Amino acid sequence: MNQEYPSTLLERAVKEFTKLPGIGRKTATRLVLHLLRKNESEVEGFASSITTLKRDAKYCSVCHSISDTDICPICANPMRDHGVICVVENIQDVMAVENTMQYRGVYHVLGGVISPMDGVSPGDLNISTLVERVSAGEVKEVILALSSTMEGDTTNFYIYRKLSQYGVKLSVIARGIAVGDELEYADEVTLGSSIVNRTPFTGKTVL
Amino acid sequence: MNQEYPSTLLERAVKEFTKLPGIGRKTATRLVLHLLRKNESEVEGFASSITTLKRDAKYCSVCHSISDTDICPICANPMRDHGVICVVENIQDVMAVENTMQYRGVYHVLGGVISPMDGVSPGDLNISTLVERVSAGEVKEVILALSSTMEGDTTNFYIYRKLSQYGVKLSVIARGIAVGDELEYADEVTLGSSIVNRTPFTGKTVL
Repeated sequence: MNQEYPSTLLERAVKEFTKLPGIGRKTATRLVLHLLRKNESEVEGFASSITTLKRDAKYCSVCHSISDTDICPICANPMRDHGVICVVENIQDVMAVENTMQYRGVYHVLGGVISPMDGVSPGDLNISTLVERVSAGEVKEVILALSSTMEGDTTNFYIYRKLSQYGVKLSVIARGIAVGDELEYADEVTLGSSIVNRTPFTGKTVL
Repeated sequence: MNQEYPSTLLERAVKEFTKLPGIGRKTATRLVLHLLRKNESEVEGFASSITTLKRDAKYCSVCHSISDTDICPICANPMRDHGVICVVENIQDVMAVENTMQYRGVYHVLGGVISPMDGVSPGDLNISTLVERVSAGEVKEVILALSSTMEGDTTNFYIYRKLSQYGVKLSVIARGIAVGDELEYADEVTLGSSIVNRTPFTGKTVL
């Protein structure tokens, strides 16, 4: 589509929005023209929310999650189990696990996974601080909750090698059929994994 | 989902994004965290593109479309047919019609349609300037290209009443089966309209 914009200012704003993931030209135009219909203080509020976040966002010095304080509320919470660390790729994953209400340990945000194709080496990730936390001796278990991809597996293995000397218990989150899914539509690898890693039936239901 | 954000700055930015049409909490979080990974000047560029647009955007004094100049490139173009005005709701519609490459006339952006439910009365729209343009006597035809809704129809009728005294030709864009669509999936009103408003077959194909 060789779309000509009637205004270069409009075109520039649309271009900025199309840089966002999953936002094409048509959606970007709709979003920008929506903002244009708002009054100036609302538009200022929108723009400053993102510049302020970028300028003032702090990262927890323990787990590297985003935080308003030097140590995030989860790491600072004495009610959480500081002997269990859940290793995740990014901040969204922390929120996703928190939303399950099933986890009472703490986190460690890697900031990605090892991916030579994308130029991400172990040195680019928060792995050395994870090793430090484990080597301090207080940690009993590290749960690896990375993506089930080649890169995630590589990173799991790299962390396993780094931590094996400390005698900490290492586990990965279960892979299997999603709750509510039907067996016939599951892929073979997932179904196979869910059979190999079957768990004792306790008589309780999930739904 | 009772999602707790680990940072109030993050929460504020996500809230601003969820005000945009079609952007939910999950998408907003993804977009904000994507921006957070960019460097500060890129984030500044994103934010300023939208504040600059809001502050500096001009609207064509003739057709009310967005423009960098007092008169937009379309209205200023002597190659366009200034005797035909296409009346549309908003700037997106101007771009949509331009993209068809089928129209060489000029435009008039109403800024919405008459909608008592949403508190939009004729006085809120750019109707008086349309009447002025037509009353000047140069205009031969006004094409109404508004939404095919109750509000669009009401607005069409209002404009018809306002312009009828000037003896200008008034037409509406054709309603019918979309190119590439199959008859059996079309709704009755559209199919009925396409039969009533059938056009002579010229031997040319559209696809």
